[in-house]
Amino acid sequence: MADQGVTRTLARWAVGCRLDDIPQEVREQGVRTFVNWLGCAVGGVTHETVDRALEAVRLFSGPAQATVIGRADRLDALHAALMNGISSHVLDYDDTHLKTIIHPAGPVASAALSIAEMKPVSGADLLAAMIVGVEVECRIGNSVYPDHYDRGWHITGTAGVFGAAAAVGRLLGLNEQHMTWAFGIAATQSSGLREMFGTMCKSFHPGRAAQNGAMAAFLAQAGFDSSERGIEAPRGWANVTSTKQDYSEITEGLGQFWEAGLNSYKPFACGIVIHPTIDACIQLRDEVGDEVNNIESVSLRTHPLVLELTGKTAPRTGLEGKFSVFHAAATALLRGDGTPTAFTDEAVNDPAIVQMRGRVTAETDQSIHEDQVEMTVMFRDGRKVTRRIEHAIGSLDRPLTNEELDRKFIKQTEPVLGQAQTARLLEAAWKFADRSNAAEIARLTVPNGTTNA
Amino acid sequence: MADQGVTRTLARWAVGCRLDDIPQEVREQGVRTFVNWLGCAVGGVTHETVDRALEAVRLFSGPAQATVIGRADRLDALHAALMNGISSHVLDYDDTHLKTIIHPAGPVASAALSIAEMKPVSGADLLAAMIVGVEVECRIGNSVYPDHYDRGWHITGTAGVFGAAAAVGRLLGLNEQHMTWAFGIAATQSSGLREMFGTMCKSFHPGRAAQNGAMAAFLAQAGFDSSERGIEAPRGWANVTSTKQDYSEITEGLGQFWEAGLNSYKPFACGIVIHPTIDACIQLRDEVGDEVNNIESVSLRTHPLVLELTGKTAPRTGLEGKFSVFHAAATALLRGDGTPTAFTDEAVNDPAIVQMRGRVTAETDQSIHEDQVEMTVMFRDGRKVTRRIEHAIGSLDRPLTNEELDRKFIKQTEPVLGQAQTARLLEAAWKFADRSNAAEIARLTVPNGTTNA
Repeated sequence: MADQGVTRTLARWAVGCRLDDIPQEVREQGVRTFVNWLGCAVGGVTHETVDRALEAVRLFSGPAQATVIGRADRLDALHAALMNGISSHVLDYDDTHLKTIIHPAGPVASAALSIAEMKPVSGADLLAAMIVGVEVECRIGNSVYPDHYDRGWHITGTAGVFGAAAAVGRLLGLNEQHMTWAFGIAATQSSGLREMFGTMCKSFHPGRAAQNGAMAAFLAQAGFDSSERGIEAPRGWANVTSTKQDYSEITEGLGQFWEAGLNSYKPFACGIVIHPTIDACIQLRDEVGDEVNNIESVSLRTHPLVLELTGKTAPRTGLEGKFSVFHAAATALLRGDGTPTAFTDEAVNDPAIVQMRGRVTAETDQSIHEDQVEMTVMFRDGRKVTRRIEHAIGSLDRPLTNEELDRKFIKQTEPVLGQAQTARLLEAAWKFADRSNAAEIARLTVPNGTTNA
Repeated sequence: MADQGVTRTLARWAVGCRLDDIPQEVREQGVRTFVNWLGCAVGGVTHETVDRALEAVRLFSGPAQATVIGRADRLDALHAALMNGISSHVLDYDDTHLKTIIHPAGPVASAALSIAEMKPVSGADLLAAMIVGVEVECRIGNSVYPDHYDRGWHITGTAGVFGAAAAVGRLLGLNEQHMTWAFGIAATQSSGLREMFGTMCKSFHPGRAAQNGAMAAFLAQAGFDSSERGIEAPRGWANVTSTKQDYSEITEGLGQFWEAGLNSYKPFACGIVIHPTIDACIQLRDEVGDEVNNIESVSLRTHPLVLELTGKTAPRTGLEGKFSVFHAAATALLRGDGTPTAFTDEAVNDPAIVQMRGRVTAETDQSIHEDQVEMTVMFRDGRKVTRRIEHAIGSLDRPLTNEELDRKFIKQTEPVLGQAQTARLLEAAWKFADRSNAAEIARLTVPNGTTNA
């Protein structure tokens, strides 16, 4: 197939795939992806990152086409896509395609739902568009990962823009030629640096990917052309941004095996690499109860990436706390918490947690896998407890159940929407694909039931 | 200075530089840059690339804050910046910083004038903002050129976004901290692939750079933070996008020597590398007159880049004609033309020009410089004429005079605005820095004198 061009082959599949072609388990995963994304978007919307972005964006917003999820604000659909991409990622609590560390829904669902508010589509069409969008971004990510990521690109932004273009292109009914151009226009806007991790720009990346990918689809629809080999040309996206290019990851087995079926959902509001440690600490706490107050030392053996990415020993802010395995372990032991409340400025500066994190040490071991950890805890009375996590909760081997996704959703959404509205929204979210007008879901997130039409 | 960080050092200079600190000749070059940009933006505005982009953009535009130069349309200032960046570059007729092949004004002037329409500023402040913006983007370009460009990045887009952020940040009165963040937010949006050359996306790059750089400044003003080492960090922009990083190009001699003083202006509406050939052909035509119809063969000896970039032997469209040294030579010989009318679909398919381009051959020679060419013309009667261009017209050694800029401006603007309005606009453009409200210039480009307020 690649003889016809990687970009064109992917475009042809993206426009031709029907919901009936998507296996039932992948469709179910698509609904889980949507539910998890929606809860994260509502939960993140009170973060100051969102307020500051909104302050700038408001000056330029066009017609009130779409909802800022979880708020009464309405913006033009492109700016709404930007804002929803930011809020869904700002707590580092969203979904993860583990093979590439792409957080797929931020770019794709944020773009698709905003455009669905502007141009009515059924829930079934929205579901198909999102699954195709996730498939596109994850396959493109596979083709260049890990070299592209190692070079410093935030792959959620750089690959996400293609996924957003695919999803929105589906909603607009683009033909193969226009989808090919949309991918080219996406390629030439692809951006986002890992250097920005720990700042407000990190969540800006999926937001901008959503906005730019959607714009690419609208431009292509208007006949705005681009290279037709935007991904694979000698000076195309893959060659310019990566030393590895494996185009078979993009073109082989389309519709036969599904990256979109491999999405995972974070139980904890921080980078995936600390999850085994938090899992171990909470399990230990469940076992020993108040005895956690008598811990003398905690020794971790982890995958090398853990200290590379999360080795901060003295975080000062909640955001920095997400990059400290020591803080995460201390909070999980003392509070049993790894959700957003574990990564606030208050938690990071709690004297008991600060004291405990000073008792945590970590060493790396190449033989420990990314979703494993070995933990040895010494108590003051000389007792020693060890715990080994083989697969952290939330990994593909121990995925969150739908009930766990419910609890995660409720914990994020209730502080914003209250109990009754949260319950209604959660029920509607699981059934969004049955709706004749998918956009209604966005409006159900507006606090106090104000429709704000 | 770089000890304090490259990004921060540049930000401190960008916010602190006063118009009085800028040498007179650099200020004069700044005015020439503006006049040339304005004529190109008016001249390009009827191109279908602009129409198609506008069709998509219209759906999302916010308040009518700024002018689409040369049209009655008004858009929010960010979308106006996008459109004006597109129209000023779409004919490949704009300015060139020859050391980096950056086209500086597209990102910078497009952003600055649009924001000036939204937030009134004096002409003097606009001039200073544009000169600082051009200085920022060209210095950042110098730090990574040529490796960054060779890798496939369209440097006008990738470096231009910093220039736009600097210029708009000045107009907003950002402090050093906010300008540092604005550069980081610019860095993480930097994009644009050379693969797009020959498509509508090429001119999209300076447009998007203008829009994204302006947005970076507004976000920073709202307190949206970023890495404070966006350019130079190990995973910052320069390391991620280039194998070369020479930060002394950014931080040394700020305010002492000026890249903004080295801008050049194209006499011909195509890539710089064909200019010596067109120059030679027009000179020959001026010498021999109708004898050009008796030419049997034309042999060119050129710099190697000429055939790499413009080696198309059988272009089918005007846009492809810009990438054919053979077409350019034929049109210059037969019509004495290298302006936008030389690169239309009509010209490329004119049987006489097609026949003539078949008589043109080129070979490359490492000893020929980029602004040189050697041409040998054989006539049917056996006569032979040779011509060597040492420095093409428009190069730093033979810059366009102000009178030549006038003629270029008039040729582009009269078809859009008519003779009388063109004359008024040209006079106002040269004197824009004296105005108390710079935005008036934009309104003078609206056809038929409609103010469209």
